[in-house]
Amino acid sequence: MEAAARVIARRGVRGLRVEELAAEAGVSTALIYYHFKDRTGILRQTLEFINDRAERYTTERDPDAPPPTAREELEQTLLLELQDTVEVRENSTAWGELRASAVFDETLREDLARATRIWVQEVAGLLGVVQPMSSAVALAGAAERLTALLEGLSMRWLSGSLPLAHARTLLTEAIDTEVARLGS
Amino acid sequence: MEAAARVIARRGVRGLRVEELAAEAGVSTALIYYHFKDRTGILRQTLEFINDRAERYTTERDPDAPPPTAREELEQTLLLELQDTVEVRENSTAWGELRASAVFDETLREDLARATRIWVQEVAGLLGVVQPMSSAVALAGAAERLTALLEGLSMRWLSGSLPLAHARTLLTEAIDTEVARLGS
Repeated sequence: MEAAARVIARRGVRGLRVEELAAEAGVSTALIYYHFKDRTGILRQTLEFINDRAERYTTERDPDAPPPTAREELEQTLLLELQDTVEVRENSTAWGELRASAVFDETLREDLARATRIWVQEVAGLLGVVQPMSSAVALAGAAERLTALLEGLSMRWLSGSLPLAHARTLLTEAIDTEVARLGS
Repeated sequence: MEAAARVIARRGVRGLRVEELAAEAGVSTALIYYHFKDRTGILRQTLEFINDRAERYTTERDPDAPPPTAREELEQTLLLELQDTVEVRENSTAWGELRASAVFDETLREDLARATRIWVQEVAGLLGVVQPMSSAVALAGAAERLTALLEGLSMRWLSGSLPLAHARTLLTEAIDTEVARLGS
């Protein structure tokens, strides 16, 4: 799965060749087909893998640091998606590619919509701890905006239209604004 | 140029074949190469074309309607990018493709960064009419967030993760929030 995320982040979904994936993973193409059945199987499981990995790196906390406040927890979860590390770049590139290819290919749409919804619900949950008097609809709306903004900023960063530090500032300000809106 | 936008919206940047473009435009491939020089030339001019076209359809107003307020002007300019018409779908799909392919290909990055900046400045200008006491930095930040959010929402819509009407509601609420933030 790591090899698949790497190859997609390098060549795009549409540049994904099973031969290159097999070479990257150090296995035969037959084993790839045995394991994933087909190209759709590869993409579907890669989507799951990058979501699990994002779940891990956005929730990892320094064990020696004092426990974060609800607000810090929210901010860290979102801002950790805008980091210049190999893992985050690879994950964000692959996610952007799966999103972009779903515009043309209907196969992945359901999986992608489900993954998006799970992400939105997670962020809505964190927002609800920060602003416990908010309605579920208001929390979901704020979470949809923050995650869609994060996707937009991430693509601008990866495509060279926006420096990473500035993307982080813009996202932090959006979190401020959404939290204030929920509290008003 | 219309044919190029259509082919990119149908097959993606990476599925663009000069033969198909020539057939779509009803000309020879030699003429395509004569006019655009190479593939990069096609992509570069398509980017310019879709920006001009977006400029047109987001500023078109009903001549019989009363002149819009500054706030209506701002809202219409942004919301007209989220419409289920052939032209807007094609434009947004092609824009998303040019953005996504710039992650892998450095050639288009400068043109894309410039087009993004012009768009941000246009929206910042409209925001400045709504909230004339705001600083240029605050206006630019709000415009960057609104346009990046619009890109994110647009990709979710086109990839089937978000119904169009809901995308429009989320964007309208974001405009409310950004305008209120600038006024506070």
